[in-house]
Amino acid sequence: MKDLDSLALRHVNGRIFVLDQRRLPDETVWRECRSPEEMARFIRTLVIRGAPLLGVAAAMSLARAGEEGAWRARLADQAATLRNTRPTAVNLGAAIDRVLEAGRSNADGGAPAMVRAAEQIFEEDVALCDAIGSRGELLLADGDNVLTHCNTGGLATAGIGTALGVIRRAHEHGRRIHVYVDETRPLLQGARLTAWELSALGIPYTIICDGMAAFLMQQGKISKVLVGADRIAVNGDFANKVGTYGLAVLARHHGVPFYVAAPRTTIDYTTVTGSAIPIEERSADEVRGAAGAFGNVRWAPADSPVYNPAFDVTPGHLITALIMDAAVLSGDELRGGGLSKIAPAMGVLAT
Amino acid sequence: MKDLDSLALRHVNGRIFVLDQRRLPDETVWRECRSPEEMARFIRTLVIRGAPLLGVAAAMSLARAGEEGAWRARLADQAATLRNTRPTAVNLGAAIDRVLEAGRSNADGGAPAMVRAAEQIFEEDVALCDAIGSRGELLLADGDNVLTHCNTGGLATAGIGTALGVIRRAHEHGRRIHVYVDETRPLLQGARLTAWELSALGIPYTIICDGMAAFLMQQGKISKVLVGADRIAVNGDFANKVGTYGLAVLARHHGVPFYVAAPRTTIDYTTVTGSAIPIEERSADEVRGAAGAFGNVRWAPADSPVYNPAFDVTPGHLITALIMDAAVLSGDELRGGGLSKIAPAMGVLAT
Repeated sequence: MKDLDSLALRHVNGRIFVLDQRRLPDETVWRECRSPEEMARFIRTLVIRGAPLLGVAAAMSLARAGEEGAWRARLADQAATLRNTRPTAVNLGAAIDRVLEAGRSNADGGAPAMVRAAEQIFEEDVALCDAIGSRGELLLADGDNVLTHCNTGGLATAGIGTALGVIRRAHEHGRRIHVYVDETRPLLQGARLTAWELSALGIPYTIICDGMAAFLMQQGKISKVLVGADRIAVNGDFANKVGTYGLAVLARHHGVPFYVAAPRTTIDYTTVTGSAIPIEERSADEVRGAAGAFGNVRWAPADSPVYNPAFDVTPGHLITALIMDAAVLSGDELRGGGLSKIAPAMGVLAT
Repeated sequence: MKDLDSLALRHVNGRIFVLDQRRLPDETVWRECRSPEEMARFIRTLVIRGAPLLGVAAAMSLARAGEEGAWRARLADQAATLRNTRPTAVNLGAAIDRVLEAGRSNADGGAPAMVRAAEQIFEEDVALCDAIGSRGELLLADGDNVLTHCNTGGLATAGIGTALGVIRRAHEHGRRIHVYVDETRPLLQGARLTAWELSALGIPYTIICDGMAAFLMQQGKISKVLVGADRIAVNGDFANKVGTYGLAVLARHHGVPFYVAAPRTTIDYTTVTGSAIPIEERSADEVRGAAGAFGNVRWAPADSPVYNPAFDVTPGHLITALIMDAAVLSGDELRGGGLSKIAPAMGVLAT
């Protein structure tokens, strides 16, 4: 596999390295990933995260295992382990399928084709982000105050990101954008990761607690809401980090445009409506406290009952526009079945 | 001053003690309060909190200072220090005024009248909570799932609480109530304090992150939203812990009744609409991390810009019913000027 480099995932001289996102922003710790099983562990424990990046990372770890001579049956087991780490993002399963399929169908014995597929998945993700950024930035105006949720930047993709990539491109082209960052409890991807990325990019931002977003909208401080997606059903309903659905309802109430940015790899063509998207529930301890480079703290009663869905589902009718690499779809176009006309990712960037 | 006892504030043998709410739920630490200045420090640093309880505590500390022979001018300074601790709750200033006024107008030299006023304020708050609980519990049905925000129980008042007192009475009278508790970032009064109270009362509950409330409503898991208030304008607009306004909008969107429980001491008769209510902004460090018995942790970048309003304002038209000690007012009654017909607290309980 050729050398590949991104903000949180690298392949260098036959070795895969992952930036441990649990330690950010205070510590920059790279971990070597020696097998698909180790990548699965990294995914489950959120060393690595972000729907697009999970697909890229899973593909790379499988391709490396193929290069190292793993047998077909072993690769299938490893693929299953990777696939079972997290149920909501669709990119993960799709990338795994694509690498396995390349290995099966190619005449050159499997491994070289798997490696090419993984390299393509990585490079396509970079290109998908660029296309999203170019299309999306046109929707942002000079002086906009953009509210975002979770992390959708270089830490969540192999490229510049989805929602955060849109903001980055607008900033790079001279528009003054101020970003309000939801801290995004329980795992604080906003306060930890998005703040870290924005700070490094020199984009002005302000962190708020998730419960403050409505008050900001009431005060007229939010021009636009811009989020990513983990899985998009054919009718435009989409799953994203829990808290997104509430923002969509609040944006509608206040007349604030609500934009979603995602690559076509996030479309699940087999899911007709959002109600069929599986929602991952995670450990109660994530809600009872917080963990990171600062340690592991608990503030709720030790045995307190908790509900911890990692995602929620926003109905497509609350979307003002869906910013994809291939096109920007309005709410009307989504309702008219526009998503079903976008081809799946594979090969699209060759055209 | 006679001995007085509540969950978080006591007067015993001439000494005032405050339960340090920053240490809950893991540590139960009582701190002696030796002066109004010390009480002001306790209020500013959130050793003690809760709009009704702040009024009671300020009154008691001033009355004790009077008993100990503080001169009139010194009492006025101490009252000003107390009044300036936190701007949003109206109970604080009203209770201070009431004690000072008693000292000025009474023939017996001041201090005994101040002490009687402080005792009355304490005992009235207990009675106001009981009246709110009795009226409000009629609105809760067997099997209800009630979403609440922040802490409005025995830790926030001298009695059983406001919103939480309503839940408590319904529970005591055999109705099966399940409480969903917003953790209430940034200071986590829900996850720390409300969870602790509900656990002690044996009332079933589940903690969620603030951003999950919308998803619960979408799933039909919330029967009613029930919150407290820190200041109510004459038109029904009210300030409460930040995050409340978003819940009100979400409840309206989902057709979920939105109830507010507060004593008449929370009405600000001099404020016509919510836009005139001052909103306290607190330290950025509260949002950058969390502090408590577990230590003091930071997860956001050390120098990250933060917006930290402690309260927000919900327009009265989003209220389904306002549960007060004197009456339950419907949204229509609020809009019709119903609040202006409720007499201020003083003396009302003697009738």
